[in-house]
Amino acid sequence: MDFSRLISDKMLGVKASAIREIFKVAGKPDVISFAGGLPAPESFPVDAIKEICADILDNDPVTALQYGISEGYAPLKELVLKRVKEKEQIGNANDDIIIVSGSQQGADLTAKVLLNEGDGVICEEPSFIGCLNTFRTYNAKLYGVPMNDDGMDLEVLEETLKINPNIKLIYTIPTFQNPSGITSSLAVRQGMLRLAQKYGVMILEDNPYGELRFSGEKVPTIKSMDTTGNVIYLGSFSKVFSPGLRLAYLILDKGVMEKFVVGKQATDVHTNVFSQMIVARYLDKYDIDSSIAKSRELYKHRCGLMLSCMDEYFPKNVTYTRPDGGIFLWATMPKGTDSGKLMLEAVERKVAFVPGSAFMTDIEKPSHCFRLNYSTMSDEKIEKGIKILGELLSERL
Amino acid sequence: MDFSRLISDKMLGVKASAIREIFKVAGKPDVISFAGGLPAPESFPVDAIKEICADILDNDPVTALQYGISEGYAPLKELVLKRVKEKEQIGNANDDIIIVSGSQQGADLTAKVLLNEGDGVICEEPSFIGCLNTFRTYNAKLYGVPMNDDGMDLEVLEETLKINPNIKLIYTIPTFQNPSGITSSLAVRQGMLRLAQKYGVMILEDNPYGELRFSGEKVPTIKSMDTTGNVIYLGSFSKVFSPGLRLAYLILDKGVMEKFVVGKQATDVHTNVFSQMIVARYLDKYDIDSSIAKSRELYKHRCGLMLSCMDEYFPKNVTYTRPDGGIFLWATMPKGTDSGKLMLEAVERKVAFVPGSAFMTDIEKPSHCFRLNYSTMSDEKIEKGIKILGELLSERL
Repeated sequence: MDFSRLISDKMLGVKASAIREIFKVAGKPDVISFAGGLPAPESFPVDAIKEICADILDNDPVTALQYGISEGYAPLKELVLKRVKEKEQIGNANDDIIIVSGSQQGADLTAKVLLNEGDGVICEEPSFIGCLNTFRTYNAKLYGVPMNDDGMDLEVLEETLKINPNIKLIYTIPTFQNPSGITSSLAVRQGMLRLAQKYGVMILEDNPYGELRFSGEKVPTIKSMDTTGNVIYLGSFSKVFSPGLRLAYLILDKGVMEKFVVGKQATDVHTNVFSQMIVARYLDKYDIDSSIAKSRELYKHRCGLMLSCMDEYFPKNVTYTRPDGGIFLWATMPKGTDSGKLMLEAVERKVAFVPGSAFMTDIEKPSHCFRLNYSTMSDEKIEKGIKILGELLSERL
Repeated sequence: MDFSRLISDKMLGVKASAIREIFKVAGKPDVISFAGGLPAPESFPVDAIKEICADILDNDPVTALQYGISEGYAPLKELVLKRVKEKEQIGNANDDIIIVSGSQQGADLTAKVLLNEGDGVICEEPSFIGCLNTFRTYNAKLYGVPMNDDGMDLEVLEETLKINPNIKLIYTIPTFQNPSGITSSLAVRQGMLRLAQKYGVMILEDNPYGELRFSGEKVPTIKSMDTTGNVIYLGSFSKVFSPGLRLAYLILDKGVMEKFVVGKQATDVHTNVFSQMIVARYLDKYDIDSSIAKSRELYKHRCGLMLSCMDEYFPKNVTYTRPDGGIFLWATMPKGTDSGKLMLEAVERKVAFVPGSAFMTDIEKPSHCFRLNYSTMSDEKIEKGIKILGELLSERL
């Protein structure tokens, strides 16, 4: 049967993620992969989860296994609201919360609630491929705004908003951005919020890495400065607890909450209750801060090691970001070079990374940049892999 | 802030589920609720799940807690394919499987992959409100085809397909349908498949209750007769294991698989891995068939009791289905009566059910039918609640 007549227009143009294809190569055991985006498995609080599971199944199994409600497990909602208030000064009388099945679903629901086909979404250029693909599956038009060292270029942002009245949403990862590792400055955050208010658009502030700061000064979240309801805040447990459990949350104005709940209902009814209970009990009875502190130390070490190896082995015409946290950094080769071609050669030498084109609004255009991940690698592999990559770069540039 | 300009057209018309609003009333402890659709909590295999969780966290915690792949946990995929082959004769060389976060997500992905705004979906009239709402969130046009005692009216189905070339999908729950309890006959199933092939449309066969047969002869699934790839089969663990874990699966032709995987990736990356491992180990090491057999006995008893109470207390001008399985039955009052009004009166007498209008393509139109659920009630409550309802019906009709 020829299914092509039956496939929706919005899915015709969306390809399987380039990263996914790279993973097939990168997943081979003899390849040193800097292509991933996984948290370090040694950060998973396995013993605590084991205790919690036994406790839930002893004392409250029916709640865990029966249908739940679309907004989320009430104790988890309370604990998250308390935590974001303390840590990020987020949450006022107009804010509400909905638990979602991972950050990707948070972006998907935002797209479902806000976007008609052809509506515009502004994203950082480069940005997280997963969410760009989510917006693509709604036939949204993506407008990339280039990243400076301190975040989105505000002049280009305003110009883009001014000439494109179809824009409804600004998608940003202001802290330790994926893929660039860049943290937007306070001034850029304030500017984005001011422009969102001026042009009557929403901001989706995606902050999965915010708690993974290992150097520099904390910068306030955009949502903490939002008094008008323009900001939807997307927090996640994937990088600070476990990604396999698929747990994230949206904090948003009550004025849009109902549509998000209806969207969630129509999407997967509710998020896995057992997993919501696991995280709720962990937040309530265990010390997530000390667990996150350990991850920070680990990532600080691995990022520092990767950077010092890059300083040693990379040719001087390759520059790179020096992140204050998170799990990614971003390398830039001279203009006119193609990191896609470089990747093919690197894979032959058993090293993988993700070429920059994957993170662009136009994935067909070659990029002279690439992303490196350092969160799960041993010291030995970081040293060996970066040395190989440095040699390849020196030969080619 | 006025958010109305920013809400997508497709979400403007979708309301929070009527059932959901009824649940707020029905959830009060002094109300006898036949409004739900929950599996009996005594059917949850809590002890087994406890053993399995400990085993997973002792022996394979990183797999459970780390990112997984979009298609699903490979051992679960294998076990499900083996099971549907044995139980339902489903699965040929062209079929593939994707694990989803509950049946609702299966319908959502199907809509995402197939439907442009304005495309048509044929559904049984009445049908499951959750999936109708999913299709509504894609701005699909719903075409209701009336249900006879043996399933969809095939003449109306063909007429509808003939005059509406925008139709791409037939949505059906052929076995112990929600809300009617009706099981489509073999002839109707064959007819639906033939018409889907003739008009080049897909069938989404939603079968969450299929294993809960407590009387009558098994009827083959539509998917088991599909040689052309027109049928997408949606199976679920919600009614035979646990709904809180949100686990279901789609079995579909390889020709559409890639788009479903891309859609899944863009929606929530992958389904909760820990829960997939729990079900996989349960299928592999425990006896799910004997657990399901216990549910069947329970539902047989409760359905039988409800029907005998209805026979005793309901006035003779109210007719009702006598399901061979599943968890719902469907009552029909004389034409011109309004089950919505009846529901308000019933709630005053502390009994709840769902009026038929909730399950119609046009939810504004009054219905003289209503749905009763019997899966979670004690004998005492079934007897008491049906008696109250019978008295109310006798007074009003």
